[in-house]
Amino acid sequence: MDLDYKSLLEKALADITPLVHNTPVLSSTKINEISDAQIFFKCENFQKTGAFKMRGASNAIVNLTPEQKSKGVVTHSSGNMAQAVSLAAHNLGIAAYIVMPENAPEVKKEAVSAYGGIVTEVESTIEAREAMAKKINQDKGASMIHPSNDLNVIMGQATSAMELLSKHSDLDHVLTPVGGGGLVAGTSLAVNYFSNDCTTIGSEPEVVDDAYRSLQSGKIERNDRIDTIADGLRTHLGDINFPIIQKHVSHIITVTEGEIIQAMRLIWERMKIIIEPSCAVPLAAVLNSKEFFRKKKVGIILSGGNVDLGKLPF
Amino acid sequence: MDLDYKSLLEKALADITPLVHNTPVLSSTKINEISDAQIFFKCENFQKTGAFKMRGASNAIVNLTPEQKSKGVVTHSSGNMAQAVSLAAHNLGIAAYIVMPENAPEVKKEAVSAYGGIVTEVESTIEAREAMAKKINQDKGASMIHPSNDLNVIMGQATSAMELLSKHSDLDHVLTPVGGGGLVAGTSLAVNYFSNDCTTIGSEPEVVDDAYRSLQSGKIERNDRIDTIADGLRTHLGDINFPIIQKHVSHIITVTEGEIIQAMRLIWERMKIIIEPSCAVPLAAVLNSKEFFRKKKVGIILSGGNVDLGKLPF
Repeated sequence: MDLDYKSLLEKALADITPLVHNTPVLSSTKINEISDAQIFFKCENFQKTGAFKMRGASNAIVNLTPEQKSKGVVTHSSGNMAQAVSLAAHNLGIAAYIVMPENAPEVKKEAVSAYGGIVTEVESTIEAREAMAKKINQDKGASMIHPSNDLNVIMGQATSAMELLSKHSDLDHVLTPVGGGGLVAGTSLAVNYFSNDCTTIGSEPEVVDDAYRSLQSGKIERNDRIDTIADGLRTHLGDINFPIIQKHVSHIITVTEGEIIQAMRLIWERMKIIIEPSCAVPLAAVLNSKEFFRKKKVGIILSGGNVDLGKLPF
Repeated sequence: MDLDYKSLLEKALADITPLVHNTPVLSSTKINEISDAQIFFKCENFQKTGAFKMRGASNAIVNLTPEQKSKGVVTHSSGNMAQAVSLAAHNLGIAAYIVMPENAPEVKKEAVSAYGGIVTEVESTIEAREAMAKKINQDKGASMIHPSNDLNVIMGQATSAMELLSKHSDLDHVLTPVGGGGLVAGTSLAVNYFSNDCTTIGSEPEVVDDAYRSLQSGKIERNDRIDTIADGLRTHLGDINFPIIQKHVSHIITVTEGEIIQAMRLIWERMKIIIEPSCAVPLAAVLNSKEFFRKKKVGIILSGGNVDLGKLPF
């Protein structure tokens, strides 16, 4: 049976509106000049915890049963999802168990603790992280929340594009970065059900172009290399979000590391806002495909702003 | 005869509203927690040219007579006023002569040229800059625009606080940094004529506390040292703005260089917006005078976001 995505999206928006910021949409005269397009930036870098992940985490948690809520949630992440699950759980009064690699920066562990997350440190391998998350899931009965391959998480991430489209109903394209696939899948559903003649386009660093290759081969591809500055985009798609992406994402544009850094700097200097490198990938895509986007109205989901100020690429 | 400041303020707001951005007002849950106050940040870092100076420059130029406009304007500045006068003049279709020190960073000269300003380079002394500006004033008949000691400039700077107060009419205090005095003077007039029971408080680096000392001594004091990171605040007050400041500014809080850097970092990390060091001084003041501001509603004019990303203090 086909899911009634439209109703699920409407429910997600209603459920999480009290829990997250309706983030502002900004534009830059100069960037519009440079791109010869009209770009509307949806600023999830201003979202609670500094990233769109707060939407998916909140929607996953709010949809738990009372019994599930009483046992808490568990996720493994060293990044934005760890903070998002911690705060979303805290706001709803439930426990959050966060499995983090022992070599994660202290500042990230502290941020998670400050949001109320209960940190368990493990060896820095995906196997160790998954094993510990599974153990907590079994021992405590805590519900596992996957950062991208979970239908409620995907619906939560969709709400950013829904808010954007409610302000700007006449966009030609909406772009997101593609990491684990939750944001682009949710966005493509929002665009499909809540816009006219708008398409969703993904964007990815060339060196971690797993989603680009997955759309070509028809199966979930992985990355051999992960040496991109866009550290949020190193992961691969999942079996829940991939079919959505296949059906609703028009195509994926890949960009070089230099193009990412240049786009990041352009946003910092011209818009005076702080975005993380992963977040600059869609603008890099617009600028490396200028002919395609010329004179178009383009929405870009600026995914997050959590960046180590001591390690800037410029 | 006393000036009818209220009418002048209303006229300035009406005149420049089409020429500048009505900048957003942002808040941060975390910074409110840390300060135990409610802070409303008026984001002039998002203003055209990246600083509030665009308001004063626009208001000065729009008030010129047709004959004056035909002869252009002249200012000397290596900073935000150079860009503001260039763009404001360009937008109104008149010539802008900008005297800049020959050792000003190339990127600043290029920015001024990109906005249409006609750059004349001189030796890097205040005497050389003033002499050249005066020569252009005499040779070309171009009207001199002083960055802070000019009534129309002061009225233009006031419009930021007017916009802030129109959204948040119940503020207890409004804070600005104090450099040449145009912003704090204008803000204090806006607060006096367009709020109830609100006071204007200035904030200054300890090492360039000329305005603090001027309010104590009753005459315009100057700085012996200028070694502050807040490079926009090294100048002294002028004979037009000082009487306004004496009458309408409640007091001035001074802060250390460390407090400035800490406040700047807090805004970057928590609010994900880029501000220049001068702009962090009012938040530093709120945080070093916590008892005074506890539970108060505080407006802060975030004055600008033009910072050299290659030279950050953290």
